[in-house]
Amino acid sequence: MSGAQFDADPWTVGVRGLNIEHLAQEESVFGLSNGHIGWRGNLDEGDPRGVAGSYLNGVFEEHPMPYAEEGYGYPEKGQAVINVANGQIMRLLVDDEAFDVGHGEMNEHTRTLDLRDGALTRSVRWTSPAGRSVHIESSRIVSFSHRSVAAIRYRVHAIDEPVTITLLSEILANEPLPITHDDPRVQELLAAPWTSVDAAVLGTMATVSHRTKASGILAAVSMDHIVAASGTGEPQIRTEAGDDLARTTITVTLERGEHLEVVKMVGHEWSDTLGASTLRDRAETAVADALRVGWVRLLGMQRERLAEYWACADVQLEGALRLQQAVRFALFQVFQASVRAERRSVPGKGLTGAGYEGHTFWDFEAFVLPVLTATSPDAAKEALRWRHSTLEHARERARQLHLKGAAFAWRTIDGRESSGYWPASTAAFHVNSAVAGAVIHYVRMTGDEPFEREAGVEILVETARLWTSLGRWDELGKFHIDGVTGPDEYSAIADDNLYTNVMAGMNLRGAAAAARRHADIASSLGVTDAETTAWDDAAAAMTVPYNQRRGVHSQSVGYTDHARWDFEHTGSEDYPLQDHFPYFDLYRKQVVKQADLVLALYFAPDMFSLPEKAAAFRYYEAITVRDSSLSSTPQAVIAAEVGHLGLASDYLAESAMIDLDDLHDNTEQGLHIAALAGVWTALTAGFGGLRDSEEGLRFRPRLPPQVPSMSFGLQVRGQTLRLTITPARTTYLLRGERPLTVRHFDEELSLEPGRPVVVDTPPSADPGPPPQQPVGRTPRRFEDVLAIVEEGG
Amino acid sequence: MSGAQFDADPWTVGVRGLNIEHLAQEESVFGLSNGHIGWRGNLDEGDPRGVAGSYLNGVFEEHPMPYAEEGYGYPEKGQAVINVANGQIMRLLVDDEAFDVGHGEMNEHTRTLDLRDGALTRSVRWTSPAGRSVHIESSRIVSFSHRSVAAIRYRVHAIDEPVTITLLSEILANEPLPITHDDPRVQELLAAPWTSVDAAVLGTMATVSHRTKASGILAAVSMDHIVAASGTGEPQIRTEAGDDLARTTITVTLERGEHLEVVKMVGHEWSDTLGASTLRDRAETAVADALRVGWVRLLGMQRERLAEYWACADVQLEGALRLQQAVRFALFQVFQASVRAERRSVPGKGLTGAGYEGHTFWDFEAFVLPVLTATSPDAAKEALRWRHSTLEHARERARQLHLKGAAFAWRTIDGRESSGYWPASTAAFHVNSAVAGAVIHYVRMTGDEPFEREAGVEILVETARLWTSLGRWDELGKFHIDGVTGPDEYSAIADDNLYTNVMAGMNLRGAAAAARRHADIASSLGVTDAETTAWDDAAAAMTVPYNQRRGVHSQSVGYTDHARWDFEHTGSEDYPLQDHFPYFDLYRKQVVKQADLVLALYFAPDMFSLPEKAAAFRYYEAITVRDSSLSSTPQAVIAAEVGHLGLASDYLAESAMIDLDDLHDNTEQGLHIAALAGVWTALTAGFGGLRDSEEGLRFRPRLPPQVPSMSFGLQVRGQTLRLTITPARTTYLLRGERPLTVRHFDEELSLEPGRPVVVDTPPSADPGPPPQQPVGRTPRRFEDVLAIVEEGG
Repeated sequence: MSGAQFDADPWTVGVRGLNIEHLAQEESVFGLSNGHIGWRGNLDEGDPRGVAGSYLNGVFEEHPMPYAEEGYGYPEKGQAVINVANGQIMRLLVDDEAFDVGHGEMNEHTRTLDLRDGALTRSVRWTSPAGRSVHIESSRIVSFSHRSVAAIRYRVHAIDEPVTITLLSEILANEPLPITHDDPRVQELLAAPWTSVDAAVLGTMATVSHRTKASGILAAVSMDHIVAASGTGEPQIRTEAGDDLARTTITVTLERGEHLEVVKMVGHEWSDTLGASTLRDRAETAVADALRVGWVRLLGMQRERLAEYWACADVQLEGALRLQQAVRFALFQVFQASVRAERRSVPGKGLTGAGYEGHTFWDFEAFVLPVLTATSPDAAKEALRWRHSTLEHARERARQLHLKGAAFAWRTIDGRESSGYWPASTAAFHVNSAVAGAVIHYVRMTGDEPFEREAGVEILVETARLWTSLGRWDELGKFHIDGVTGPDEYSAIADDNLYTNVMAGMNLRGAAAAARRHADIASSLGVTDAETTAWDDAAAAMTVPYNQRRGVHSQSVGYTDHARWDFEHTGSEDYPLQDHFPYFDLYRKQVVKQADLVLALYFAPDMFSLPEKAAAFRYYEAITVRDSSLSSTPQAVIAAEVGHLGLASDYLAESAMIDLDDLHDNTEQGLHIAALAGVWTALTAGFGGLRDSEEGLRFRPRLPPQVPSMSFGLQVRGQTLRLTITPARTTYLLRGERPLTVRHFDEELSLEPGRPVVVDTPPSADPGPPPQQPVGRTPRRFEDVLAIVEEGG
Repeated sequence: MSGAQFDADPWTVGVRGLNIEHLAQEESVFGLSNGHIGWRGNLDEGDPRGVAGSYLNGVFEEHPMPYAEEGYGYPEKGQAVINVANGQIMRLLVDDEAFDVGHGEMNEHTRTLDLRDGALTRSVRWTSPAGRSVHIESSRIVSFSHRSVAAIRYRVHAIDEPVTITLLSEILANEPLPITHDDPRVQELLAAPWTSVDAAVLGTMATVSHRTKASGILAAVSMDHIVAASGTGEPQIRTEAGDDLARTTITVTLERGEHLEVVKMVGHEWSDTLGASTLRDRAETAVADALRVGWVRLLGMQRERLAEYWACADVQLEGALRLQQAVRFALFQVFQASVRAERRSVPGKGLTGAGYEGHTFWDFEAFVLPVLTATSPDAAKEALRWRHSTLEHARERARQLHLKGAAFAWRTIDGRESSGYWPASTAAFHVNSAVAGAVIHYVRMTGDEPFEREAGVEILVETARLWTSLGRWDELGKFHIDGVTGPDEYSAIADDNLYTNVMAGMNLRGAAAAARRHADIASSLGVTDAETTAWDDAAAAMTVPYNQRRGVHSQSVGYTDHARWDFEHTGSEDYPLQDHFPYFDLYRKQVVKQADLVLALYFAPDMFSLPEKAAAFRYYEAITVRDSSLSSTPQAVIAAEVGHLGLASDYLAESAMIDLDDLHDNTEQGLHIAALAGVWTALTAGFGGLRDSEEGLRFRPRLPPQVPSMSFGLQVRGQTLRLTITPARTTYLLRGERPLTVRHFDEELSLEPGRPVVVDTPPSADPGPPPQQPVGRTPRRFEDVLAIVEEGG
């Protein structure tokens, strides 16, 4: 644990004071996004900074992929998110002295992210070296209602003597990214990826347009301002634009008590097909529209959109203020990462940092999409449509690999494979079942038949084709998938990875069912009855490795026979193991980076009995080191299911604090969106016992002692279901127009809209002693992390 | 098959005419070396050329290793052989016209490599565009007696009219290598790796000295000449030297019938520790010494050294002139690659080309060293001492991998690991058993106790320690080695690779025995009785995978259960498979690039019964595609052992013609030294049935119908044993001073020096129908390749 100390509050995340060492982490935590634009929480004045970050979803530069030894099918080009022209900058001069947090005297510095406003506010009281005091209040939003718009309201108050205020409001292009590549070719390409195409001033509006050198992407960023001074001084405004900089200079003299208010509207557009003048027009129109709407209404719309979200998505928790805050922070991040992504990918870091080069991975579909489906289904649909839009790349990749159907990219921005290490990417075909699983889940939860017909069936069919071409039948009539890599990145290229096989089976069955539901579409894709039968047959014959001798399921064939990692001689400084041991050694031993088989226990709840789950959980707990942020969520869910509620709450705490406590010491590269999404999953699937299947929703709510009560909502086919859980009973309340049947433990509940149903929690069985983790890898206890008594919350 | 057509002759390899398309192949075939210096067979005048090549063993440049995704333990620096200053060049002007094979009229152009002289000669009759005719005779050697010296005797005859001859004899530095790296950093580094340190003329002697930019290696190349004209004209000689060029200009006017003779002596020295003036002195001294000896004596010493070699090493074959030629060519290459390497590595290509960046691999110890041990044991010892000299690097690598003992480099020039793809390098730990096996074999065959004590025991101990730290005991008392890669490069990271396990067992037993023989040395290495017992125990308990259901040994656990490669739908254009299919797919299916399990049948002859060998050979034949030149030799050996002599001869022909027929279409990058060494192995271990073990040498000689008789010799503990084999009987003749016991089939023969023993060949059993190879991968028939009737040979 390291990083900034955030104030405990149920609806805000704030920091008092300024610690330069925590700046980069805070920039990620305070990053604003609408899924289209991402602004890291850089200080308004641009410096000091941890990592400058202004991103547009889908804007990347292409770079060569270097290999020490070449191989067939290795991707030749990589993709890396790049900074777009940065409209965050508001440089302040007080008389002739530049406001700088490192000089003069700082009497107050607070920053607060308001999770209901969707705004980051900052309040600074500063006295310049010459003794001039000002109070700066800035607020910024990345608009949910106006997709291309980010806005800043910047106020400077003269506290004592009269001062001359000069504000430089800028758009700055070609800000470098942190260096993450060894290859100097790539470094050079990413150091200044943009070439200026146009720099224009029209009235007070300024626009800079740039094109990337390799990927051929064009971006235009515009700005204009509303300037008001409270006193008699008339602000002087001048706007200029050059290749990599547009600047509006605002000067005014304030008497004591007077203030200057500047509202800056920044418009962002990009395209890989449109021309520069079109993009400029669009960016400027977005700014003009925002100017017309104005700051107050823009902020109001932000609040309205969030209120709509929170109405269903909010999870209320009693008795754990830090957890309450962290859960809302997590849900806010999932929301803002995706709300206006609109057929673009949602990267592993959202748009809060350049970590993983801005790539999207399987965990978006596996971890984030179910949360979006339950809380923000339109965003879920758009994200799935993005994957669907990459099908042609995926088919091409499958052809290149001599496989049928489609092989979705392991890591990508635009859908093309950008992985440089095939054992942990190309071989990890389970990304395809994650996409298919998200489709099946989305359709089941929303009943969105138009989506299923337009995109869902095709995804399911093409992924099913991949699996049948990837697997093989043996002489005994079993179906196998050899030589693949499952979620656990400390194993690779194994036969019959249980997770992969189970998920492939789900994929195949789902495809067959969808093809039967929509025979016309399936037929247009060339699907025959023989093909759907073959899918069902393969799913039915799928190998699920089990070690009879040990009485436990095996992560892959032979896995449980391998040497166990020597945890006893592995010190805390040796983690994460991948930084200190070769893949060679990790792959051949029993050591799990992140839940793999345990994730299958969650995603395929009906394939394993409770004793099987308990045995598997106990076995894999002992060898799972959680070097990945994706691990604690499934561990929390299954810990809860098999009765270890205290352990489940410890894992919940780990997911919840991953970025607020900077647990992986890399929050500066961006937030861990999938782990944050997992907080909702740990609560709902863990303590709520939520599972969905073709038969509908099931709940087995049981709270740990640390959480006296919990309430959460989810959207089901356009209606909202809210559960309020206490140790003894659960209240189900349906909002909508149609009844809904769910299961509460083994009881079927018929819910009528508006009528709460209260049911008791049955007694629980003894789960036995808690399972052991590897030496030194036991999670921090919930109580030590989160259980702060209410502080007037 | 493609490439040049060489004249059939028992003792020379010659080409008439000049085909520019075959030039690069011919440069490799006509390359001269003594293991220290390598001169490709570039034309004297430098142009045209396929690939310019002048190498010094051990001289390389270091370059960054690029990775798309980094990993722990990945080597950061690569090594690449580079051209040293090239002393081959003799540019000729006839009057004012430069001799150029592409201009004027070529009336004769022949080049001949004489395998008894160790010299490459060239004869050219050329008429200039202006009508002046000359006859050029050049001969060159890389001296076996004078390690630093290469020499050229260049004669120009005026055929008709008087001509003025100008000869520019040069040393030229920084000649570029072919581009083999994608990375422009590496390209730039290797394009001109040398910085001039000194360029000096002293009398008629010229020396250029250079230093590499990254590896810090210093090299000095000197030349001087003996000039004689047969007529009255007095040659004018001028010598100059600059940064990258030293030039001696010799001018003389020849009357009809007169000639100019220039003998050029070139001295080569390098070091990574000595200073420039020391190196220059040494190079110039070498030249001065060669001048004193003179061309004729130098050539005589060359011939003497070869006569000594051929006395034992020659294999005489009747009835197959092409095979006779190819076998001697192969043996010549093995000899010249290693004879003066003297504690430097012998690269996969020898010093005949820059292929594989000049790296040495496991196949040197596994394929070449046994041949050297039998035919040139001093060179074998020196090569093993080179490996021994890299032990500190190997220990460091083992430490980095958290293993005990030593992990020798998979590919290297100076002993440091230079592999960029760990599944096919780091995981291929069998390189260590190849080194250990070569030590065991060398000591057994030579009885060289000083070597064993000074180097052998330490190698065996450190590799044994590697294996015990790499493997694991299971609960049933078996020893396993998980997650490693065997010789077959179409499989990787498998559990209990049979070859690796069998060879590790041999390594462990050999280490234990050597430690007991030399208890004082073992003790100084910290070896205890408990440790040697542990080695023997692990060897005894080693897992040898066998598929009961199929009745055949398995290449690794589960291998024979995997999907079989779809050979039926793989076209001839799809080979080599690695260029058209991803590793992912190759690794998970039954398809063998190169003999793996079959190599174990050869190297561990007593671990498998004849029926087991026959079953395994038949099984693996059907899935072995021979995309590696290392495959046909072990296939020939085991084919012969299990009775398929015709097939064995086909595989022999493939190995024998690999470079003369350019079968892999890459001879231009250098010769396949291990495959060429395998020709001797296919003959002696295949048709001769030679095996060695602790009990001594065994033979089971059986000739295929294509080879009416064969005679070969080998050195055993300082004596020479020669076998002369006909279909019906074999004559054993020992030369030396002590008796020797060998086995002939099941009969023990006591051989006395100088007394031939003639024994009959027992009748053979029916081996059944010949095994089938994958569609399209049946080897060419011996008769179609080699069985040319004697052409006056």
